[in-house]
Amino acid sequence: MAQIQGLAAHAAGAELLPFHYDPGELKPQDVEISISHCGVCHSDLHLIANDWGVSQYPFIPGHEIVGTVAAVGSEVRSLEKGQRVGLGWQSNSCGVCEWCMKGLENLCAQSEATCVHRHGGYASRVRANARFVVPIPDPLESENAAPLLCGGITVYSPLRAHGVNPSSRVGIVGIGGLGHLAIQFARAFGADVTAFSTSAAKETEVRALGAHRFVNSLDSKAMKEMIGSQDFILNTANADQDWSVYLQALRPTGTLCMVGVPPSPLTIPAFPLISGMKMVSGSPIGSPYLLREMVDVAARHNVKAKTELFPMAKANEAIEKVKKNKVRYRAVLAN
Amino acid sequence: MAQIQGLAAHAAGAELLPFHYDPGELKPQDVEISISHCGVCHSDLHLIANDWGVSQYPFIPGHEIVGTVAAVGSEVRSLEKGQRVGLGWQSNSCGVCEWCMKGLENLCAQSEATCVHRHGGYASRVRANARFVVPIPDPLESENAAPLLCGGITVYSPLRAHGVNPSSRVGIVGIGGLGHLAIQFARAFGADVTAFSTSAAKETEVRALGAHRFVNSLDSKAMKEMIGSQDFILNTANADQDWSVYLQALRPTGTLCMVGVPPSPLTIPAFPLISGMKMVSGSPIGSPYLLREMVDVAARHNVKAKTELFPMAKANEAIEKVKKNKVRYRAVLAN
Repeated sequence: MAQIQGLAAHAAGAELLPFHYDPGELKPQDVEISISHCGVCHSDLHLIANDWGVSQYPFIPGHEIVGTVAAVGSEVRSLEKGQRVGLGWQSNSCGVCEWCMKGLENLCAQSEATCVHRHGGYASRVRANARFVVPIPDPLESENAAPLLCGGITVYSPLRAHGVNPSSRVGIVGIGGLGHLAIQFARAFGADVTAFSTSAAKETEVRALGAHRFVNSLDSKAMKEMIGSQDFILNTANADQDWSVYLQALRPTGTLCMVGVPPSPLTIPAFPLISGMKMVSGSPIGSPYLLREMVDVAARHNVKAKTELFPMAKANEAIEKVKKNKVRYRAVLAN
Repeated sequence: MAQIQGLAAHAAGAELLPFHYDPGELKPQDVEISISHCGVCHSDLHLIANDWGVSQYPFIPGHEIVGTVAAVGSEVRSLEKGQRVGLGWQSNSCGVCEWCMKGLENLCAQSEATCVHRHGGYASRVRANARFVVPIPDPLESENAAPLLCGGITVYSPLRAHGVNPSSRVGIVGIGGLGHLAIQFARAFGADVTAFSTSAAKETEVRALGAHRFVNSLDSKAMKEMIGSQDFILNTANADQDWSVYLQALRPTGTLCMVGVPPSPLTIPAFPLISGMKMVSGSPIGSPYLLREMVDVAARHNVKAKTELFPMAKANEAIEKVKKNKVRYRAVLAN
């Protein structure tokens, strides 16, 4: 096989530089994707900076990948050459543990991540186990679909797991790459949707995305009016917040679910959890079957990422803009 | 109707003194119970001390009541005079709100508590709405059944709500009035049961109650061995603890559920919640239908509170012993 060209970080926090590697023989159960688009996710920035202490340099970031199948391994029957496909955060799992057998491969202890200890999607091509490569339905544009592969599934999976339905009042905290998709998906579930954001300027856009109301989370009076109003609050923000205010905003039996990772531990008063039978939960990406379901739902309900397109060669520029929170709402690199 | 004799707190933290009150006309939907036994719950001590700021003096504590029906209101059809019944923490609810209609009367905003702003069970008689008065199955002894009415339902309800079953690994934190019942109920669900306690001396008794293993929670090596082992951990203790250790002890998708109320907010790291799809929840007593189910399960599975009996007149002595954590495992007052 030919060398794969990409852009790699060579040290913690360094600018990406051109890089190539030899992918070796294509494994029997792997697929090689010729990449057309790759989203820029905050997790890429964390990996580049080695914020999680797991990065090994050099490595090519990128895990919101859309492209076409360039080659299939000898045992792959589910995909064929030329087919448009996507690949997200996870590129393999053991396939035989309890969690894999339960269809919760995202909880597999041997989970392999697309761009951790291997090379990801800021590149010409990428490989992954065929189970983690999902066909992209025709109605989705590749540019808007790419951010669904990580950002989209991350918010779709907890909405499904927590049984969100047309009777649900759903709050979305933080309106960025994940939050703007969460609003759209929550609407697709038929839920009443409230967007909580510190950026009052986002109100118009947030309503256009489908939110029924906008609450400025810095406005304590507005927050007080939300007491006891929500069944499910999904936090997509990475910032520390006063979580007791969101616990108060829940109705009895409500859940506060974390997909954004605040830097400090959550401070959760026990009494409202107990008296209101409330829950605090978390959710990591989603399983391959939900990934397939999610792109199908996105296609049928017209859920799409709002994107800003950059040529692959300008990945460093895109990353800088994402760092400064200047992208509305997801940067996507195109080959 | 005749006056009701009882023992009342007349000021925060004061010893109980003889007291009587006129209950007035029996309301159409109420039942009057002639009390034979009443458990001493930690909540009584909190109410006497006004720890929750809701106490109004004088009041008669007591909300783990067993006795016989002395009189029924004109509209009561479900119970009859002479029948042995129990009454727990809750004595009424609005009956018409969403939560009452869902069979979650314990979440009703108009919930009435047996001994908050009214007189409870350290007395000759007590009244309550008939929906909250539950027949006691014959096999249960009144003395052992009384603590089921609050302590028992408090641990039974979350085991049911979280779907504990014979495949579940259940941890019980804190082996006191609630914990010793939780071990027995968890066994009745067929679960594998681990007791976590700071009292190594309790090991033999805890195993006799049905726990498969005992872990001294002060032993950090023993706690390390529990990493990733439990599906459901029920905290019955009122003390602050390092909750991150119990989060670690959970398997993926596991839940840490609070029924004990630690004085400080819980400190919960977000990352393990997210990566392991774990939950922190809470649960308050239980609904009337679960109360009926719970006493039936207790009767069929021989779940009984281990009790120390005191004559009603020695309530202050019982309270002192409970305060000092010297009772194994529940004090019960008898008329």
